[in-house]
Formats: sequence, C-alpha cells, structure tokens
Amino acid sequence: MQSWSVPGDIATPSLLINLETVKANAARMSEQLLAKHITLRPHTKTHKSVDLAHLQYSFGAKGISVATIGEAEVFAAAGFDDIFVALPIWCTAKIASKLNQLATIAKLRIGVDSIAGAQALATQIDRSSQIEAMIEVDSGQHRTGVRPDQAGRLAHECQSLGLRVAGVFTHGGHSYQGRDAVDRAATDEISALTLACESFSDHGLTPTVVSAGSSPTALHLGGIVTEARPGTYLFNDRQQVALGAALPEQVAAVVVSRVISTAVPGQFVIDAGSKALVGESSALVAGYGEIRDLEGATVTRLSEHHGIVSFDRTPPPVGTLLQVVPSHICTVVNLYDQYATLRGSSLADPIRIDARGHLT
Amino acid sequence: MQSWSVPGDIATPSLLINLETVKANAARMSEQLLAKHITLRPHTKTHKSVDLAHLQYSFGAKGISVATIGEAEVFAAAGFDDIFVALPIWCTAKIASKLNQLATIAKLRIGVDSIAGAQALATQIDRSSQIEAMIEVDSGQHRTGVRPDQAGRLAHECQSLGLRVAGVFTHGGHSYQGRDAVDRAATDEISALTLACESFSDHGLTPTVVSAGSSPTALHLGGIVTEARPGTYLFNDRQQVALGAALPEQVAAVVVSRVISTAVPGQFVIDAGSKALVGESSALVAGYGEIRDLEGATVTRLSEHHGIVSFDRTPPPVGTLLQVVPSHICTVVNLYDQYATLRGSSLADPIRIDARGHLT
Repeated sequence: MQSWSVPGDIATPSLLINLETVKANAARMSEQLLAKHITLRPHTKTHKSVDLAHLQYSFGAKGISVATIGEAEVFAAAGFDDIFVALPIWCTAKIASKLNQLATIAKLRIGVDSIAGAQALATQIDRSSQIEAMIEVDSGQHRTGVRPDQAGRLAHECQSLGLRVAGVFTHGGHSYQGRDAVDRAATDEISALTLACESFSDHGLTPTVVSAGSSPTALHLGGIVTEARPGTYLFNDRQQVALGAALPEQVAAVVVSRVISTAVPGQFVIDAGSKALVGESSALVAGYGEIRDLEGATVTRLSEHHGIVSFDRTPPPVGTLLQVVPSHICTVVNLYDQYATLRGSSLADPIRIDARGHLT
Repeated sequence: MQSWSVPGDIATPSLLINLETVKANAARMSEQLLAKHITLRPHTKTHKSVDLAHLQYSFGAKGISVATIGEAEVFAAAGFDDIFVALPIWCTAKIASKLNQLATIAKLRIGVDSIAGAQALATQIDRSSQIEAMIEVDSGQHRTGVRPDQAGRLAHECQSLGLRVAGVFTHGGHSYQGRDAVDRAATDEISALTLACESFSDHGLTPTVVSAGSSPTALHLGGIVTEARPGTYLFNDRQQVALGAALPEQVAAVVVSRVISTAVPGQFVIDAGSKALVGESSALVAGYGEIRDLEGATVTRLSEHHGIVSFDRTPPPVGTLLQVVPSHICTVVNLYDQYATLRGSSLADPIRIDARGHLT
C-alpha cells in the first residue's frame, strides 16, 4: 500500500485520518446494513469523537454504542440521545446518580449478565426513567454474557426487579481468531440470539432489540438480528485487512512518524513507540505496525518512544517521514487527544478525541 | 501482597497511587545515588506529573529527563529549568522554534546519535542559546546510540557544526531481559561510557556529564557515571519486582477495578481492559496484571474494556473491588488524566498527569 501525500512539516508522531476514506467506510457499512434492514448503532469506543459520531449519523447511523458511562456522558452532552452501554456494568450509588442524570437527556440501555448486577441497577436507578436493560448472551467469545438458553430467565428476573428490558445482545469477538473464524462467528451470533429470543419467549417475553456485531461480522449478519454495533470499520487496520473485512486502501488511519536513528546496524528507529502505536501483540498480524512504501517492513520491537524496525536493506535516512498502519486502531486512538486530518494532500482542521480517557 | 484499604465507592477503573509508598521510593533512590555521588535526573516519562517532579526535587533530584519536546514544554512552563530530552530527535523547523523558545527559560540538552541529526539541529537552533548536545552510545540494548568508540568523533562533528556538547549518555535497557541481566547491563553501561569518555579524550574533548541508568540498573552504577535517569522506581511494578529492583510492598501504583461478570465458568471479568491496564505482554511476567489478595490470579486476557481472569476457584462476586498491579506502569500511566491518591486509607486530592498525550 502506498503512502498518502502528506505535508512534510507534519508533527510526529501524529494520528492521521484520511477524511475521504473515513466517509467511504462510513457510507459502505451503512448501505450494506440498510439493505439488510439492520440498524447501525456504531460503537464509538473506536473513535471517541463527537464529530465522527455526527458523521456516522449523517450516513444513516441510529443511536450509538459506548463502553463506559464517561463516554455516554460526553456523547449525551453533545446531543446524542440514544445510547447503549454495551457491556455489563456494576452500578454503585455514584454510577446510579450519573445514569439518572443521563436518562433525563437520552434513552439509555445498559448491559446486564447477572442477577446481582440487575439488582444493583434496579435498586439504585430511577425506574421511571428512560433506562432499559439489555441481556448479554455469550455467542462463543466466552468473555461476558449468560448462556443463550438462560437469557429469558434473566430478562424475567430483571422485569421482576422493576427493570424494563429492551432486548438481547452479543458480541462475536471470536471473529478475531482468523479469516476462517469470521463467517462462523457471525453464524454463532445469529444462532445465539435466536436461542435467546426463544428463551425470552419461554418466559412470555419478546425482545424489541436483537443486537450483534463486530466490524468483521457485521456484514455477515441477518436472520433475527435487528441491530449491529461495529466500530473499527470507520478506520480499519491491519487486523481488519488480515480478516478480509477491509482492503488495504480502506485503511483510513495511520500513525505518521519520523526516522530518528539508524545508528544500530540491521534496523532503523522511528519516533512512534508504545505510547504512540500500542505495544499489544496480535495473533493475526506480526509486529506492531506496517510501514507503507517499505515492502514487508513492520515495527518489530517497541520501547515507549522508539519503534524499532528490523531492516536488512539500506535504511531510510534519519528525518524520513513514514506512515505506519496500526495493527489495532481502537487502542491507538485512545492514546491521542486529536486526529490530524488529511483532505486531499493537505491537512484540514484537527478533530478532537473528546471521550479519550473517560474510563469511568 | 495485600490490598491497601481503599474507600468502597472509588470509581473504577482508577489509577491509584499510595503517597507514602511514592515518597519512600523517591527517598530511597535519592539517598542511594547521593551516597555514590551520582546526580539523580529522574525520567518524568513514567509519571508525567508536575507535582510528582516537584516531589522528586524535594527528595534531591536535580534536573529532569523527558522523552518528547511536548513533555519538555509542560515541565518548563511549570518552572523546571534543567531538562534533558534523552533520545535522538529529528529537528524540523517547527521543533527548532520550540527548542529556541524553551531555551529562553530552561537549560536544554538534546540526544544526538547521527551526523545528519546533529546537522538538522545545528542549522536550525539558535546556537547562542542554552541548548547542548548529548551523544548517545549503545551499551548493549541495541536500540539507539553510536558505538562507544565512535562517541568522540560524533562529539567532535557536533562541535564543528557549532553545537555545544555537554557529554555522553546511554540506557542499559537490556536490564529488562531478566534478573540475571541487571548487573550485567549496569556493568555494560559503565564500560560503554568509559570507552566513550576515552573516545572523547582521543578528540581532545572531556564530557561534563556522563549519564546512565534505568530503574533496575540505577543502584548498580558507579565509576565514571555522574548522572542517573531512572523513572519507574517512583512507582515500581511487576517487572521491577521480577527483576529484583523492588519488593512487592514498594509497588506504589495499582489499577483499582471491579468485577463486572462471572457469567462464563472458569473465569471472572473486571472493568479494566487494555484501555486501563495496557495490552502489552512482558517477557518477564505472565499476564497483564496481578490481582492482590487472590493468590496467583493474573489478568490473562484483555479486551478494550474487559480484563479476563482465569480462575478455577469460586470467583469473587460481581461488584467486588480489586487492586491490580500492572506489569509495566509507565504505559499504564499514559492512559489516565489523573492519579487517584491514597493517604492512609482515605483518598486525597487527585494529581494531574499533566504531560499525558504530549507526544510531539
């Protein structure tokens, strides 16, 4: 994949997004889900940006998913009024007070996967508010969520506790195990949600919302699914390309970096380390980022402020500007306060990463 | 290691530091280096906090090390007037303008490991300013730095270009290879710097500053070394304990988290994922963090907002507050905007992580 044309005086390391590619990615996911009559409720944990959530809305998204109450607060304050906190939370008195406040300005859905969690929620929130529970089921990732055949029982318990139940959700995160796993994970999501709906039915309940979807599985959904929650699709990354969920030219975000050292033979060093590129390894892709325009070159070792690229050819000279495609963009975005933005070959206004650091 | 006594309504995930332990760590490093007549110039990339740099000064630190110009700006604005940017940078026109500005309020030293890098610096900075070059040598980490026997030549080139050269530095980061490596890395630092000084001498030069030291090697330094730059010692972490550089009770920072799910058998899930605890793996310690009070329990798998703990006993119930000792505290700190602080068993005022995100 070729580098974008970027002004030579860009600060490094920067997180740079190509606005045309971002828009094309937003449009493609929307159109394909619309054609299946599945509502797009993008996961904003990927971009954490009010402006980019507005962009997703302009391409047909309806509602957003978030991962923390702090993220919900940022987006609610910006006018987003339909928010799903898509994991089970533990409701303390302080959290309840935040949820009650949020529910005055937004419809809120909260993940639940235990009776104790439902009780903590039910006893502390204002039950006349716009807060609804969503039952999480495990479709094969084995992270959180009850067994699909237990979904109806938990939904019934929630109702007995006075909670309104909007529906059921799952995340087929085992799609990230490899290209072969994507189809299977999507099928697992549909099967688990189908079972969960039957379990609801056994308890005389009907879920209004049936929600699934990671970026890799989103376009494989169908059947009983009413809503998808992809996040990464807006930017894509090496993992999405490895999974066949994106083409290299659909990667919309890179870390721009400069060569700072060629002193040690057999390698060169860039100014993007684990605080700019994330030191998490991926089972799908080798190294911590791929250097555009340098065939096969990846960041092989990271210190906090050094990215070391093993390289047996003549290294690019110190000062050379390079574009690094991250392995997993979501954790990379989380390191920055803003996106540098590229329109054509010029830098446009940066975009704030409003919810960065809103962990609680 | 036992958990600290912490108020039950603390927000999670939070980065919590114990102020008494922080002070004890600050004091110990200062005293031991003072006894060796080595100046302590702590690396502030670990804590990124003006208040904590003041604390280090109050315990005898003289000058600070930083990893980015942005960090230098934050600390210079707060009155720190002796700053070493301890890696080779590539000086663009914009960086030169920042350096010139900084040099009006602080003595600045900048790492150099190439002639091209020295040229970019020399041709763009105000050479009448308080900016000095520090020659980096490779003592065995094989990251950046010229061969020790080349140090004098590069120093001489810098001088020919009109740069003042303060001295020579190295980072024996190969100390992180294991407990056996620490002593050897410290010896390597001393040997490399001794060779570098001889190489300076061959060119008729004498370094004023001879700087070394990671947290593991700092207390093993001696000989020709005049300055040490440890960072992690202020907080410590699982890696420092594994290296024998700290005792478990000298760990001053934890991530406080709550159990949010026990739905999947054989594990429980906490609300600290890779955006709260960092997904980088360590060759020294298994998993992504160690749970205090739960013998042998570590965070074995991470999603962005889920920490999965494999656990074959009865899991702690949802809502349980847990303290997780990070594997590598420096990259964890970089995710947060503030420290929660513990004084005794009460929370004191939070401390800002002022330079977080100041990457450029």
